[in-house]
Amino acid sequence: MESIWDNRKSRLLAHMKAAGIDVALVTSPTNVYYLTDFACHPHERFLALVLDARAGTESLYVPLLDEPAARESAGAVGIVPVADTEDPYALLKGRVQAGARIVGVEKGAVSLAQAERLGVVFPDSSYADLESGLLAMRLRKSEEEVAKIQRAVDLIEEVVAHAAAYAKEGMTELELAAEIEYRMRKLGADRPAFESIVLTGPRTALPHGTPGPYPIQRGDFVLIDIGVQVDGYCSDITRTFVMGEPSEAQRRIYETVLAANLAGIAASRAGVPVAAVDRAARQVIEEAGYGPLFTHRVGHGFGMDVHEQPSMSGQNETVMAPGLVFTIEPGIYDPVIGGVRIEDDIYLNEDGTARVLTRYPKALTRLGGV
Amino acid sequence: MESIWDNRKSRLLAHMKAAGIDVALVTSPTNVYYLTDFACHPHERFLALVLDARAGTESLYVPLLDEPAARESAGAVGIVPVADTEDPYALLKGRVQAGARIVGVEKGAVSLAQAERLGVVFPDSSYADLESGLLAMRLRKSEEEVAKIQRAVDLIEEVVAHAAAYAKEGMTELELAAEIEYRMRKLGADRPAFESIVLTGPRTALPHGTPGPYPIQRGDFVLIDIGVQVDGYCSDITRTFVMGEPSEAQRRIYETVLAANLAGIAASRAGVPVAAVDRAARQVIEEAGYGPLFTHRVGHGFGMDVHEQPSMSGQNETVMAPGLVFTIEPGIYDPVIGGVRIEDDIYLNEDGTARVLTRYPKALTRLGGV
Repeated sequence: MESIWDNRKSRLLAHMKAAGIDVALVTSPTNVYYLTDFACHPHERFLALVLDARAGTESLYVPLLDEPAARESAGAVGIVPVADTEDPYALLKGRVQAGARIVGVEKGAVSLAQAERLGVVFPDSSYADLESGLLAMRLRKSEEEVAKIQRAVDLIEEVVAHAAAYAKEGMTELELAAEIEYRMRKLGADRPAFESIVLTGPRTALPHGTPGPYPIQRGDFVLIDIGVQVDGYCSDITRTFVMGEPSEAQRRIYETVLAANLAGIAASRAGVPVAAVDRAARQVIEEAGYGPLFTHRVGHGFGMDVHEQPSMSGQNETVMAPGLVFTIEPGIYDPVIGGVRIEDDIYLNEDGTARVLTRYPKALTRLGGV
Repeated sequence: MESIWDNRKSRLLAHMKAAGIDVALVTSPTNVYYLTDFACHPHERFLALVLDARAGTESLYVPLLDEPAARESAGAVGIVPVADTEDPYALLKGRVQAGARIVGVEKGAVSLAQAERLGVVFPDSSYADLESGLLAMRLRKSEEEVAKIQRAVDLIEEVVAHAAAYAKEGMTELELAAEIEYRMRKLGADRPAFESIVLTGPRTALPHGTPGPYPIQRGDFVLIDIGVQVDGYCSDITRTFVMGEPSEAQRRIYETVLAANLAGIAASRAGVPVAAVDRAARQVIEEAGYGPLFTHRVGHGFGMDVHEQPSMSGQNETVMAPGLVFTIEPGIYDPVIGGVRIEDDIYLNEDGTARVLTRYPKALTRLGGV
């Protein structure tokens, strides 16, 4: 039986043939992992999966010091180790069959500097973008992939539960963030999927704030936006709590965001445009008078990367299909009262309905044992 | 008095004028932080510092949701918030004075996809690389910067000491890594400077291995390669321990690596080529018969990024100057006995001598209270 890796490479080859691409050069570590099972952090070293549709060959250029790990990867074929003392572009030029007319690269991953060096390897070639093809392959998740995402979701929800129990008045954002990341590791996460966001008080109104030495005070919102990567796949969840008793203003903001979150989920199904999800959530917030305080799109696709297609924005008229995985995360950010964001992870089932992967409760929860 | 940010922007403007660059577009978050004090993680959103040498103007394009944080940054001038619903390239085209002949970009940070969109903004411009100029500005660290690096070093050495005391037989790599990253946070690190490497047994021979569910066993090497970022600057240290009593073979490998580390440090001073440092360390390992098992360059520069110039390789004949900060980290990787790496952080003082920033002891240390 064809392995998952062979299947993915076959699909990429079919895409190459349809697009007239002679040679594909895949260099983003995530896509290399997707196609070969080889997880690599090459830093500035050279990593590339090279598929030649003319010769029917594949080569995987890896840093010499990563060769042992590459040899243990299920889908890694034709491994070419590159020592720090070697010029990988010269090596590539010596090995690849000359005369490629169209070379496929991930235009979002290849820098101008790399493109100039590739120009020496492929002096007479033009470049086609592989990224859209690879993203399209990755867009619709298989049940196996969703099972991995669900594991990452289950793990992060354990972390959220622990954080809610652990948070105390006077504890700083940094202390709570440290405990959260410790718990991720203890539970078996490979790494945080992104920089953990733990904010308190008016700082919760910073949608991208980073944890600082600020203590949680009575009456504060506590916003926790965290995720993990497990076995190559991510989760991403936000819950907002309150330390002690919420004010009426806090409660009203919270209930509005929750209603917007539920409206976004209710609008999520195959066959409707992405924009309808954003509009459904945004309308709730606008009608409550908070429109200007909801300053971002309603969500984003994710999978191996924490930000993938589709972008869940009000401008994206793409019609949704089964297999999509995305977040719904409306928010209201009041610079004085603070911010609330409630974020869930959604999968569109084969029958087009939405499966909410996150199950952590969303009713406003008081911290501190009050 | 001119602020540190104004000073850096002035130096960049001087570089632009010397190179005939009309408009500079700085998009890497690290360089934006270096020039404006604004630390931003824009993910796929648009972030750019735009300096126009013709008009003498500067603008900082930031994601709308990061605007409050940008306004708190000391060197952020001319902030232009970009909503998720706006096209940042259209915004840029509408605001920048037409007719730029040469546009400076970081060719290593700008992707081919971004370059195509910039082509619409600057249809008649050619591109010059800003990266070498910015890296050259960042290459020689000021005493203020080295003080920040020293703080990051001091913090990580506290973590190493804690890890050495905490490691026990039967503890897995993942458990020790979790404790290490927890301690980083507790001590005030902003984040790990890179994925923490904690390996045991034969897995220590994987120079880039990641921690797994493998327990430390008696007689194992335990290799810890970790760093933190504090206030924008990194540290990077490796120490290798042994659980219990080392074998003669382990001891011989360890002492060879230590001698190579010391030889590399002894060769480090302004006025000699980088390659001499690599050669000095490598010669010790080759003479002991382990040459083929030292599979990487002797080190790398670092600062705001954990990998910066200079590349400390045997091919780099660049003559070293005061102000450089780099690692010296020879290693021997035996697939059966395991690997040893000993990594220190070095600064070249104004008088050209080497200052070793790392002070953690390097004699072979047994773990587990034996």
